[in-house]
Amino acid sequence: MNTEFKNVVLIGLYSDPRVAEPMRLVAGHLAKNGVRVLAEPEVAAELGVAAIDPGALTNETDLIVAVGGDGTMLHAASLAGDIDIPLVGVNRGRLGFLTDVSPIDMLASFDEILSGNFTRESRLRLRATLSQADGTKKSALALNDIVLQRRDTGRMLDFETRIAGQYVNTHMGDGLIVATPTGSTAYALACGGPIIDPRLDALVVIPICPHTLSDRPLVIPAGQPIEVTLLQRDNTSAEVSIDGHSLAEFRPDDRLLIAESSRRITLIHPPGYDYYEILRSKLNWGRDSRTQRQQSDI
Amino acid sequence: MNTEFKNVVLIGLYSDPRVAEPMRLVAGHLAKNGVRVLAEPEVAAELGVAAIDPGALTNETDLIVAVGGDGTMLHAASLAGDIDIPLVGVNRGRLGFLTDVSPIDMLASFDEILSGNFTRESRLRLRATLSQADGTKKSALALNDIVLQRRDTGRMLDFETRIAGQYVNTHMGDGLIVATPTGSTAYALACGGPIIDPRLDALVVIPICPHTLSDRPLVIPAGQPIEVTLLQRDNTSAEVSIDGHSLAEFRPDDRLLIAESSRRITLIHPPGYDYYEILRSKLNWGRDSRTQRQQSDI
Amino acid sequence: MNTEFKNVVLIGLYSDPRVAEPMRLVAGHLAKNGVRVLAEPEVAAELGVAAIDPGALTNETDLIVAVGGDGTMLHAASLAGDIDIPLVGVNRGRLGFLTDVSPIDMLASFDEILSGNFTRESRLRLRATLSQADGTKKSALALNDIVLQRRDTGRMLDFETRIAGQYVNTHMGDGLIVATPTGSTAYALACGGPIIDPRLDALVVIPICPHTLSDRPLVIPAGQPIEVTLLQRDNTSAEVSIDGHSLAEFRPDDRLLIAESSRRITLIHPPGYDYYEILRSKLNWGRDSRTQRQQSDI
Amino acid sequence: MNTEFKNVVLIGLYSDPRVAEPMRLVAGHLAKNGVRVLAEPEVAAELGVAAIDPGALTNETDLIVAVGGDGTMLHAASLAGDIDIPLVGVNRGRLGFLTDVSPIDMLASFDEILSGNFTRESRLRLRATLSQADGTKKSALALNDIVLQRRDTGRMLDFETRIAGQYVNTHMGDGLIVATPTGSTAYALACGGPIIDPRLDALVVIPICPHTLSDRPLVIPAGQPIEVTLLQRDNTSAEVSIDGHSLAEFRPDDRLLIAESSRRITLIHPPGYDYYEILRSKLNWGRDSRTQRQQSDI
Repeated sequence: MNTEFKNVVLIGLYSDPRVAEPMRLVAGHLAKNGVRVLAEPEVAAELGVAAIDPGALTNETDLIVAVGGDGTMLHAASLAGDIDIPLVGVNRGRLGFLTDVSPIDMLASFDEILSGNFTRESRLRLRATLSQADGTKKSALALNDIVLQRRDTGRMLDFETRIAGQYVNTHMGDGLIVATPTGSTAYALACGGPIIDPRLDALVVIPICPHTLSDRPLVIPAGQPIEVTLLQRDNTSAEVSIDGHSLAEFRPDDRLLIAESSRRITLIHPPGYDYYEILRSKLNWGRDSRTQRQQSDI
Repeated sequence: MNTEFKNVVLIGLYSDPRVAEPMRLVAGHLAKNGVRVLAEPEVAAELGVAAIDPGALTNETDLIVAVGGDGTMLHAASLAGDIDIPLVGVNRGRLGFLTDVSPIDMLASFDEILSGNFTRESRLRLRATLSQADGTKKSALALNDIVLQRRDTGRMLDFETRIAGQYVNTHMGDGLIVATPTGSTAYALACGGPIIDPRLDALVVIPICPHTLSDRPLVIPAGQPIEVTLLQRDNTSAEVSIDGHSLAEFRPDDRLLIAESSRRITLIHPPGYDYYEILRSKLNWGRDSRTQRQQSDI
Repeated sequence: MNTEFKNVVLIGLYSDPRVAEPMRLVAGHLAKNGVRVLAEPEVAAELGVAAIDPGALTNETDLIVAVGGDGTMLHAASLAGDIDIPLVGVNRGRLGFLTDVSPIDMLASFDEILSGNFTRESRLRLRATLSQADGTKKSALALNDIVLQRRDTGRMLDFETRIAGQYVNTHMGDGLIVATPTGSTAYALACGGPIIDPRLDALVVIPICPHTLSDRPLVIPAGQPIEVTLLQRDNTSAEVSIDGHSLAEFRPDDRLLIAESSRRITLIHPPGYDYYEILRSKLNWGRDSRTQRQQSDI
Repeated sequence: MNTEFKNVVLIGLYSDPRVAEPMRLVAGHLAKNGVRVLAEPEVAAELGVAAIDPGALTNETDLIVAVGGDGTMLHAASLAGDIDIPLVGVNRGRLGFLTDVSPIDMLASFDEILSGNFTRESRLRLRATLSQADGTKKSALALNDIVLQRRDTGRMLDFETRIAGQYVNTHMGDGLIVATPTGSTAYALACGGPIIDPRLDALVVIPICPHTLSDRPLVIPAGQPIEVTLLQRDNTSAEVSIDGHSLAEFRPDDRLLIAESSRRITLIHPPGYDYYEILRSKLNWGRDSRTQRQQSDI
């Protein structure tokens, strides 16, 4: 088949049988259609496909197929790193926010995708750069969120935020989330943030359990860099994490800079992709049993 | 059968077929067991049972069986009025917070109840007394909640609360809910209130969409009477409602007093009643599709 | 003085002494600087300036100066109507979100503004169009928000939302707010919405006290039109209001369309305008007494 | 003076000058009135009073005077341990929830207290007992709250709650707070809990940033013991803390039991104590600048 996706890397937690089976089916189906399928060495041996180091992808990879949950998609995005390798996600039976291809009709979905019948959606990513007091810098790309959080129980963090160099607020509480629209339906939602349409070039800054009850989520243009510094308190210990993985400890003399990355990620959706339908499904909208009771109450 | 429930009043929205059928089945089953079944005249004719004016129940009624949703149960409680006639609720297929007898096994449930195998649960009620400027008084009993709410779009209400005679706060916003534990899972929950165990003799006072973000729900002993007065603003128009039904308009020179009533209501539950199971079912706890995705994420 | 603001309309609630005095001072100061000052007839007589019908402003008006609170600024924006007449707001002693010129240094601020030393900020507005079942249409521009709200106590509204023609959700609750970034710090904030930076071309759709607890605020690109329809329920009565003023009753066969307007409004700020400082001041950030207690706790 | 408070222990962070001065004044005033004043050895030397080991108080201590913030009062309560030694709190200039004696009129307040003119308020405490998999038990008393919280960034906790032996829910999120009424205005409030009147014998169970948005605070009778167990997840690491101080790590095979303690704490208030006034002051009720703007808006 004449497709732009000639080299496809398959990733997933193969040890999970709900993942292994769709991986085998997808691998076979893609190979049959003339696609070169690759996987990490151990999985490649199982699938009978070529082996590749997923930690060293180049732009020769045309597509990453992630099989699993949204966590697998975040992992796939991290593998893509600075390269905008398109991603498509197959869920294990339950729709994910990012894994919108259902195993039930996935082979038909891949036929559509291979024949060029798909939509491309560009999602913004954030770069976190932590400049530590000793001069070292740590940096990473986030598709969902960058989270600053205290590590010690029983101690609030004091920290200051600046946006585009301008002082915003001095916060007290458990920490701060800076989320992309993609991340707005993940941890950010549990912390009181709004849902942000992925087409909007915006970030949301959400204090976690803030001491001041009027310290509310703030939605800003994605192009506005955010700077966070920790105020000195004895024994303050905080951590910065990227899409749920620890980047580094965050100390009072460190500086955390969060800015929109020029490295976006492209998601590939088979025909019929509907963001609102995913929201309805994942958030149980309209399926609340309390709702249904009321609709026909006397 | 030797039961304490000799005279049973059946209520429900008979025009709804999902209600009519269980009503017929229950009526027949109770009659067969020697219970005297009564219903409002029109329904009585349909069911072939004795007619009674449901607006004039006396303590000769031993039990009210409400078939429908929680709204029907609230209506049943209002029919009981000052008399503590026990109530049992049959739902129409979906569990209610108050209608915990399922139509699937309701006949067996009634056998248990008639044979004395049931639990009795006493729920507190509130009395709202609105003293109007012209000297008239209006009063009603609430099983769920007493709600003060603005009627005009675009105008906040200013109102003052006192508890047991002591000044509490001057609120601005859309209004105020005073809910019983029973009502804590109804409108109060949508307005940010906590869930309150019905065994607790407590009330919750919840400002509706308050302008001041730190104006939060306050849980107090049920024995503490609450007084609300409206501050003068031009054209202020507010309304007091009891369990979702309007009591009266509320004007700046009026005084609303809310106090625990000595008239409680007894709910009858068949064996196996589990309050937490109802919470889990009605609030979709543990059935969130987002949850299930995450539990086995990589 | 050689200023672009040659014809200035002054508005404010002159009967309020805290408004009348700054109005007199501003009128005198502007006149002394060669500006032609206008006001509505009654106020014009008091101020000794030319009279104008504020309901019929043309683009000959170069600037509207609103003295009062944010409500006065919303009124000024409604007077500007389809014309983008720049607005500047003088507060009565307390900073407003929109009235950022303080009476204390207002004369100096006007000197800056007249000499061209100011910033111009363009704020988006929404157009609400209500198409009623009988064919009539009602339409209005909003700077803050368009609110759909029930009018009867004790009845939830059932309504459906569509964005850019796509079905989003069926909501149950007290209503819906569609707010601009400007409106995000007004009623929307009391209903759980996020703060939205006014530079972002976005709207926020906020269900009011929704029955389904996962029915959360949704931030979308401003260019996405929103359609709301009411589902049929007996006796449903709802109202649409624009910046706090009733537009019309909203009935089950009506259709409410909310779209970004091409008619934006320009705010004029004297030097030193700082959006974050206004947030800090209005939301008591960093001034919470609970905060200060904790900062030096043992 | 003939007072019941013959032996008074003074505690406070003496190194803080805002604490040292009122400590000196109180010590002198009490001694002058014939009270035997004690303090920990280092402070005793500074104050010229008798030394005592504050970690080994007996019921010979008639009163603890805590000078500082609410943290100092929590510390005082922990020093009282199993003994119900009355506590009185002097704040450092700003009212605390627990430290309601102001330094401005503290000497007069102590005169009132010594002459028997005071109110006694009994506050409930919780006992946390952590039974670890290896058989060890750790236990502590809490006046504010018992908090279970994850220690690793990026990992949700899965845990189960039971109340009085009955299964309640399986939660996912950052953890759980069980707070007393006293603790309801501390960390619990930042996590979305209600304010609970200290006269109510109730607890509140609050999930921290729960994944399921309908997993809401639950208020229960204080006599209902709560059991928490962690579900097995790889690398789960959680911690239990008591009034902000770590008790122990919490592992999947451990069991945390939280129950009302028979060891309550008595607070002593000088005349004029007003709980609602403290709420208004600490939560900035009625002092929101947004409120004041609106009250006189057009």
